[in-house]
Parts: sequence; C-alpha cells; structure tokens
Amino acid sequence: MSAAHGRTRGEYAKSSARRQAILEAAVEVFASAGFHRGSLRDVADRAGLSQAGVLHHFPSKPHLVAAVLTWRDDESRQRFVDDVPGGLETVRALVALIEYNQRKTPELVELYATLSAEATSSDHPVHEYFVRRYAWVVGYVQRAFESIAGSGELRADVDPAAAARWVVALMDGLQIQWLYDRDSVDMAAHVRTYIRSLLTVDL
Amino acid sequence: MSAAHGRTRGEYAKSSARRQAILEAAVEVFASAGFHRGSLRDVADRAGLSQAGVLHHFPSKPHLVAAVLTWRDDESRQRFVDDVPGGLETVRALVALIEYNQRKTPELVELYATLSAEATSSDHPVHEYFVRRYAWVVGYVQRAFESIAGSGELRADVDPAAAARWVVALMDGLQIQWLYDRDSVDMAAHVRTYIRSLLTVDL
Repeated sequence: MSAAHGRTRGEYAKSSARRQAILEAAVEVFASAGFHRGSLRDVADRAGLSQAGVLHHFPSKPHLVAAVLTWRDDESRQRFVDDVPGGLETVRALVALIEYNQRKTPELVELYATLSAEATSSDHPVHEYFVRRYAWVVGYVQRAFESIAGSGELRADVDPAAAARWVVALMDGLQIQWLYDRDSVDMAAHVRTYIRSLLTVDL
Repeated sequence: MSAAHGRTRGEYAKSSARRQAILEAAVEVFASAGFHRGSLRDVADRAGLSQAGVLHHFPSKPHLVAAVLTWRDDESRQRFVDDVPGGLETVRALVALIEYNQRKTPELVELYATLSAEATSSDHPVHEYFVRRYAWVVGYVQRAFESIAGSGELRADVDPAAAARWVVALMDGLQIQWLYDRDSVDMAAHVRTYIRSLLTVDL
C-alpha cells in the first residue's frame, strides 16, 4: 500500500495494534457482562480510546462481538494442522486446544460460554453464527470418529455421530463446571479420559 | 389465617395465583432476554400487572429470578421419590426429568442455560445459587453411580466421581445443542444411551 492513500506503513501497524487492543478489551468486557450488558463505552474505556475510536474500527456492537468470535476461531484453527489429518490426531489436537484455552485464555472460555447460551434466542445478533458453528464442530468431530472407526480404533459399540455430539456437549458442560469451580475441574483431563473410554487404543 | 388480618381465604388464593402468574411471566422474559436485559417492567406487562404489583410480591429482580430457580427446583424434586432410592432408579428418574423438561418446559431449559452461563461471573446475583447447585447435583449423581457400582452394575473401568461430572456436563451441553437445533437433538435419548454405555445392565 503506498503513502499516496494517505497512510504510511507505520500508521497501518498502529491501526492494526489498536484493532487488536479493542478486540482484547471486548473479550474482557463481554466475558463478564455478556453481550447485552456489555457496552461499547466500557470497551473503549478499557482500550484507552474514545467510543468514536472504537466505532471507527467496528461499526456496531454486533460487529465487534462477531469479530471477537471470528478472531478466536482463527486462533483456534491455527492450532490444527491444515491438511485433513488422521482422526486420532484431530482428537488429540482438540484436547490440546482445551488445555490451551483453560491455561491461557480463561476469559475467552467465559465469553464463549455466556454468548453461546445467550444466543440460543433466535433474535440474538450472533444466533446464526452459533447455529453454523455447532453444525460445523459436531460434523468435524464426527468425521474424526468415522476415520478412527475406519482404522478399527473406535470401540465397536460407539456410534461416531452420537459420540461427536457427546464430546462437544461434554466440552461445553465442563466449561460451565470449570467456570464455577476452577480448582476442582480439569477440563482437558476429563475430555481426554472420556475420549479414551471410546477407543480401543491409547490417546 | 383469620379474616382479622384483613384477608379472606379468597384473597389469599388470588394473591397466590398472582404470584404464580408473575413467576410464569418471569420465566418467559428472562429465558429470552437473560437476567441483565430482562426487566421487571417486561415481567409486569406480560403478567398484566403494574410494576408495583410485581414488587409487592418480589422486592427486586434478583429476588424474582431466585424465586423462579427455586420454584423450578421444587417442581423437579417432586419428580424424584423422597426416600433415597437405588442408584438405577435415580438415573432413570434423571432421564425422565430431561424428557419432561424437553417436552413440557422448553422455556425453563432456555432460562436455565442462559442464567447458568451468565452467572459464572462471581458478581452475578445468582452466582452463589449455581455454585451450590452444581456441587449438589454432581454429588447426587456421584452417589447414584457409587450405589450402582456397589451392586456390580457399573462397568469396572468407570469412576463414579468422573462419570457424575460427565453426565451433568453432557446434560448442560446437550441443552445448548438442543436449543440451537430442536429437531435434530433428543436430549433424553442421548443421556439414556450414554448412561447405558457405563452400565453392565440395561437402563
């Protein structure tokens, strides 16, 4: 991009850093207050910007929350390899992701738990995002279990489609239990032990 | 209660019916709007009362939401027998309760999912209610599995404490999936099939 557009490379870097600061502030605000109670003013205050400064990057609250969710998805996706790997590698990566979220991004776990429950109302601004996301995640885990079954590593009495729903449900439900009692609940260990119980091999 | 207190039996019945109407209106309002966005004014409008009329029965919004949750707990408890039954009867009653909630009280399922996620923030008015409730529910299911293990009906490789967390997590997680896709997810059938997979006998 040339300086003829009125912005130097340094200005772009500054704008990008500011965008990132807003996203991080938004995670903290919406994780504790939820979508409805959290305000753009709170996000601006926390990011050290004016409300107009936030609106310059994200034209509305739904835009900002959607950007936070997409950002988290992109971050998570980077933790999976690009090619379709074997089913066991996929579920191993899933457990590693839970471990990472639990240790490094507890406020994102809280944001996700709150928004995914709030957004079950069909008029919620990110309802459609979650409808698509659940369909995608359950399908993704199901394909992993089908691949595991194909190599004879899934217990014969386990249905890949049901097991996929159970693993996703277990992850969501353990998230809630963990948020209430972080010392007693090790989400990643529970999911690993549970998935092991479905396999004929170690994980 | 004598009429000397200024209220006849008919007036008490009327007051009790009004209280019930407020609780039912509150379920609908808070299930779709969540605790923070739902207002006493919305509840009053839906119940056909003034806001003062609602405040006469419930002095604040947290009082009202706590009353809704307690009311739901009382209703649920009536569906369990009073004496401590065998472990298998307990988990059968749990599955029957999920079936009932799914068919008869979907708006309560939505309320519970939204509030339990929102209230993970330690400053939420019903945070302590949920901390206690999760500890109680997980303990209750754990005792049922211990009883089942005692009669040799739990698979030898299943840990009752872990299985209790998993069943409660599965219920919470399936609730979310069901709220996004009510036609594809049969919560009670999934929980029944899952619990069966932990047992050496049929359920």
